[in-house]
Amino acid sequence: MAKSQINKPTILIVNDDGITAPGINALAQAMATIGKVVIVAPDSPQSGMGHAITINKPLRLDKVDLHTDYESWQCSGTPVDCVKLAVNKVLKKKPDLCVSGINHGSNSSINVIYSGTMSAAMEGAIENIPSIGFSLSNYALDANFEASKFYANKIASAVLKNGLPSNTLLNVNIPNLTKSKVKGIRICRQALAKWQEEFSERLDPTHRKYYWLTGKFVNFDTGDDTDEWALAHGYVSVVPVQFDFTAHHTIAQLNKIKW
Amino acid sequence: MAKSQINKPTILIVNDDGITAPGINALAQAMATIGKVVIVAPDSPQSGMGHAITINKPLRLDKVDLHTDYESWQCSGTPVDCVKLAVNKVLKKKPDLCVSGINHGSNSSINVIYSGTMSAAMEGAIENIPSIGFSLSNYALDANFEASKFYANKIASAVLKNGLPSNTLLNVNIPNLTKSKVKGIRICRQALAKWQEEFSERLDPTHRKYYWLTGKFVNFDTGDDTDEWALAHGYVSVVPVQFDFTAHHTIAQLNKIKW
Repeated sequence: MAKSQINKPTILIVNDDGITAPGINALAQAMATIGKVVIVAPDSPQSGMGHAITINKPLRLDKVDLHTDYESWQCSGTPVDCVKLAVNKVLKKKPDLCVSGINHGSNSSINVIYSGTMSAAMEGAIENIPSIGFSLSNYALDANFEASKFYANKIASAVLKNGLPSNTLLNVNIPNLTKSKVKGIRICRQALAKWQEEFSERLDPTHRKYYWLTGKFVNFDTGDDTDEWALAHGYVSVVPVQFDFTAHHTIAQLNKIKW
Repeated sequence: MAKSQINKPTILIVNDDGITAPGINALAQAMATIGKVVIVAPDSPQSGMGHAITINKPLRLDKVDLHTDYESWQCSGTPVDCVKLAVNKVLKKKPDLCVSGINHGSNSSINVIYSGTMSAAMEGAIENIPSIGFSLSNYALDANFEASKFYANKIASAVLKNGLPSNTLLNVNIPNLTKSKVKGIRICRQALAKWQEEFSERLDPTHRKYYWLTGKFVNFDTGDDTDEWALAHGYVSVVPVQFDFTAHHTIAQLNKIKW
């Protein structure tokens, strides 16, 4: 093995759209120039799985030959399960970097909470691995990942070189633009936004009612330092994310209440 | 209807252990003295579901007659789905309070991330409803909920009276002690801790390999202001939790990197 190969960092690639999604192949291509790529991804789509883990049933993990250029494993569990199995059973050590995505669809603002892509990256960070989630603001299976690949490579290289603040991961969202139209990278905060749910109410063939979740995204945040602002203005948004969920700034206030 | 009944706050009760779990009945009993209780809970156990939502299949929602004293609905989805359906289809308006639990097992420190109980409460907070998750440090189905009920009532009453800081929910954990042994309530921060995973490797009847997640909890945090410290010393821990995951304190540092 050539020395350059030995010194290459190991890059774990996960996602939530499943191992056959074009986005994970795009991410593998973007990472292959800077490291040794190992893919461990769900065997079926797992969008909206959040930080779910599988505790009440067994997991399957099988080597597959889908992305022929890269070592690839499919797992029957959630995106977070994939990270745990990758570290414990596939790599048997921590990789130098964990990247998740490229998600088909934005994971900006409140979506970070529902996203399996971001939860996988968060699990990497909990494992003390520098971790990044990448998402493209385009849900289509045939989305153009040209700009995403360019920025994923750029940001992953910078993280390998500089590291990340402790207990922090990155939520990177790429606007749905051609590479030449993207204005650059902005460090942002998560916008205050939510989904306004509606449920489509229908009848099944036996006339029993069922519901299907729909909804529209509402951004309450007018700040120009948010991820939503950056994406709307043609920038790649980079939000540092932490897994300490404590609202530290409220502790003094809560201590004043007579419980 | 008597005036006292009209003025009673509406309290939505959810959980992740499922509608038949003793913990949700205990929580309903604790809330019934201070409000009008409506239960919307998963039709099967959903531990470890995190903030998962159901987007690729329909949801069922049926009124049931399990907790005969309280209006009860079971849902085929996740704990977060239950909150969305409760607000949109059952109550058709926001309740005055959303409480989740009482979980069979602690949701202190890093468990907040994996917990369906806490994700349901977080969804309530995203919906701008004062929300609290309650968990007892005892996984047993026949756990004693006496102290939990007392403190759930006390804390819910204080929240109804005082409100909560904006975009904040509470993660309440109760030590596995009798009521007289509990020393009181402490406002805490989330301890820095993690699960050290191991996977039990087994063979199925057809000799195919499968894995079962196991692991042990490791607390890296020696602070006396954490939830783990409080629970170990006989206190009820109350952690204010936010759904803005931005690591604000790292933004200046990240802006110094050449991306």
